[in-house]
Amino acid sequence: MTRYLNEFRPTRRLLMGPGPCNIHPRVLQVMAETCQGHLDPEVTRAMVDISDMLRIVLGTGNEATLAVSGTGSAAMESAVFNVIEPGDKMLVAVNGYFGERLAEVASRAGADVHKVEFPWGKPVQADAVAAELKRLGKVKVVGMVHAETSTGVLSPPAAVANVAHEHGAILLMDAVTSVGGMEVALDKWGVDVCYSGPQKCLGIPPGIAPISMGPRAEEVYKNRKTKVVSYYLDIGLLKEYWMPPHKYHHTGPANLIYAMREGLRMIMQEGLEKRFARHAKNAASLRAGLEAMGMKLFAEPASRLNSLTTVWIPEGVNDAKTRSTLLNEYNLEIGGGLGPVAGRVWRIGLMSDSSHPANIFACLSALEEVMLRQGYEIPRGAGLAAAQKALVS
Amino acid sequence: MTRYLNEFRPTRRLLMGPGPCNIHPRVLQVMAETCQGHLDPEVTRAMVDISDMLRIVLGTGNEATLAVSGTGSAAMESAVFNVIEPGDKMLVAVNGYFGERLAEVASRAGADVHKVEFPWGKPVQADAVAAELKRLGKVKVVGMVHAETSTGVLSPPAAVANVAHEHGAILLMDAVTSVGGMEVALDKWGVDVCYSGPQKCLGIPPGIAPISMGPRAEEVYKNRKTKVVSYYLDIGLLKEYWMPPHKYHHTGPANLIYAMREGLRMIMQEGLEKRFARHAKNAASLRAGLEAMGMKLFAEPASRLNSLTTVWIPEGVNDAKTRSTLLNEYNLEIGGGLGPVAGRVWRIGLMSDSSHPANIFACLSALEEVMLRQGYEIPRGAGLAAAQKALVS
Repeated sequence: MTRYLNEFRPTRRLLMGPGPCNIHPRVLQVMAETCQGHLDPEVTRAMVDISDMLRIVLGTGNEATLAVSGTGSAAMESAVFNVIEPGDKMLVAVNGYFGERLAEVASRAGADVHKVEFPWGKPVQADAVAAELKRLGKVKVVGMVHAETSTGVLSPPAAVANVAHEHGAILLMDAVTSVGGMEVALDKWGVDVCYSGPQKCLGIPPGIAPISMGPRAEEVYKNRKTKVVSYYLDIGLLKEYWMPPHKYHHTGPANLIYAMREGLRMIMQEGLEKRFARHAKNAASLRAGLEAMGMKLFAEPASRLNSLTTVWIPEGVNDAKTRSTLLNEYNLEIGGGLGPVAGRVWRIGLMSDSSHPANIFACLSALEEVMLRQGYEIPRGAGLAAAQKALVS
Repeated sequence: MTRYLNEFRPTRRLLMGPGPCNIHPRVLQVMAETCQGHLDPEVTRAMVDISDMLRIVLGTGNEATLAVSGTGSAAMESAVFNVIEPGDKMLVAVNGYFGERLAEVASRAGADVHKVEFPWGKPVQADAVAAELKRLGKVKVVGMVHAETSTGVLSPPAAVANVAHEHGAILLMDAVTSVGGMEVALDKWGVDVCYSGPQKCLGIPPGIAPISMGPRAEEVYKNRKTKVVSYYLDIGLLKEYWMPPHKYHHTGPANLIYAMREGLRMIMQEGLEKRFARHAKNAASLRAGLEAMGMKLFAEPASRLNSLTTVWIPEGVNDAKTRSTLLNEYNLEIGGGLGPVAGRVWRIGLMSDSSHPANIFACLSALEEVMLRQGYEIPRGAGLAAAQKALVS
């Protein structure tokens, strides 16, 4: 029989990679509810609800806060396309894969892209950004990544926003791996454009992604001399569709809209402070466990993410073999490295519903077993004990 | 209580507008299965299965046949962005809203866009396209809409492909409202780039959309001097991700991938010929019913879609009032007109699972009742009788 005629029933995995995380059954179930028209009054009300909740999660009063009908990568393009016109100067702070991606996206949009680079694993430094801005003269947009998914490193948005504004530029920020799991405060920090992804600390399946633009960025949009290159991602058109008068623009993904509303509603019910504390506590436990197993963390203590922990792969342990054994024997997914640290680090996510002590214990146990088999010497149970201890401290 | 804290349970509607149609429970249920990683071997296998089935539905052997992570509008942009570079001449045959949209998308991408216009409600004429191509000189891409969702009109792709090729251009075709419900034969017709939408005759929820590029279009892509403006929609990068080696590009929407696989699998199980015949028979029944109610069809007999029927709104009948009554009292969605026929026509869809006699009867009955209330004179039951008769003839 032709393979595609077989029934498809995905194996349940424990998702502890860089995203997607495990999606809560409440969110999955609402996605299976009846599909409605994209302009059905119930769907458009859900869209407005989503904007209201996104503003809370993003720490902003920005009117232009909505979701694009695509993944986080589409939201990145929307952010760039809306504020960049061909020839505009953009400075991107690059300290990992997604900073590079941001520069690539801006360059394709016709921006005159300059990069200020930091070593993979280190945070962005505002003073280096300031020096580069001074050197470059008129820069329209500064780009940075709040939480680098490739390295597990957190960078300081407020400091970078300050130097951007001092030089007359706006700040565009990738917050794909922080929103919903760690504090994001666009208005307090002065971030002008921000986008995120759903399948990380928001606990929503991929395919719909948040974007928010503040007054300075909307001013840039209003003063454009050319149309946004993408009709699909044009924030002006998106606003008229997502918000009243809900003018037809494209056929929004109703079932993902239900899922996003439910995922955000779960965050509201848990409360942001409690949710951040949960992510912080579980991350501390995972880190303690990994270190007790003799492993070295990749990011520096002051800039570690609570959503994603990066750890050096010990000498003599095989990356691909370990990850495929974890997947095939334990149905456990962790992430490999990207770019210069491919094959050298693992990325272990504790995001949304996946940020749970049971998952930490499962991951440390399985990892211990698979590494022991490869001759990595480690006292059995040391990682688990340290992780448990960190949880009750 | 804040509104967004309420539970969201969408009302079940009978979707008989221009899409989305009602999604079969099998497709909805698989969407609620556990989310997997975007590069999980089970997910990447499902992606390859989708390509295999899309080739059958599109009537093509095109290697570059896959789905973009966005709606049909994103697929339209992907089609245009991949074959257009700034300054390229593109001729768009416009006979409705989506032809206009195609021209707008191409213009934003920097194309030198020319339009050959036909009245709304009439099909594209190949000889008029040929005359315009002769007049314009070197044109790189000809664009057309196979099944205009705004007017319910079918146009002849093979004839237009012939004149495009005679003038050294490739043919880019929108098949959003035909694929899965009426014959689409890219290779036989000579169509070089084609995109579609999921939520019409494929019976898949919105958020993921098919695209296919043939050898002539791939050649155009390979000979580009500039990068595709969108990293997200770059067919070269998408191919490496969607097909082996499944190189990371973006986080594909796993649950929509499950849904697309299941929707296509249902089409394979029904069989294309049977499916097309079902759509044809039900459309004939709906048309007979509407005409027996004294209403006039908008499109000419030779160019009517089986997926979407457009009908003039009778004198004295209020568009907005009728549609809101249908939605609120009968949970029935039909579509209004767009552009020059806004308020003057209705668009009634019979797509995928929604193409069913029970739905025809429900729609004609409800419409009759709502129009009678507005003083439209019509013998009770005439529409139903004619629709039933057409089904058994």
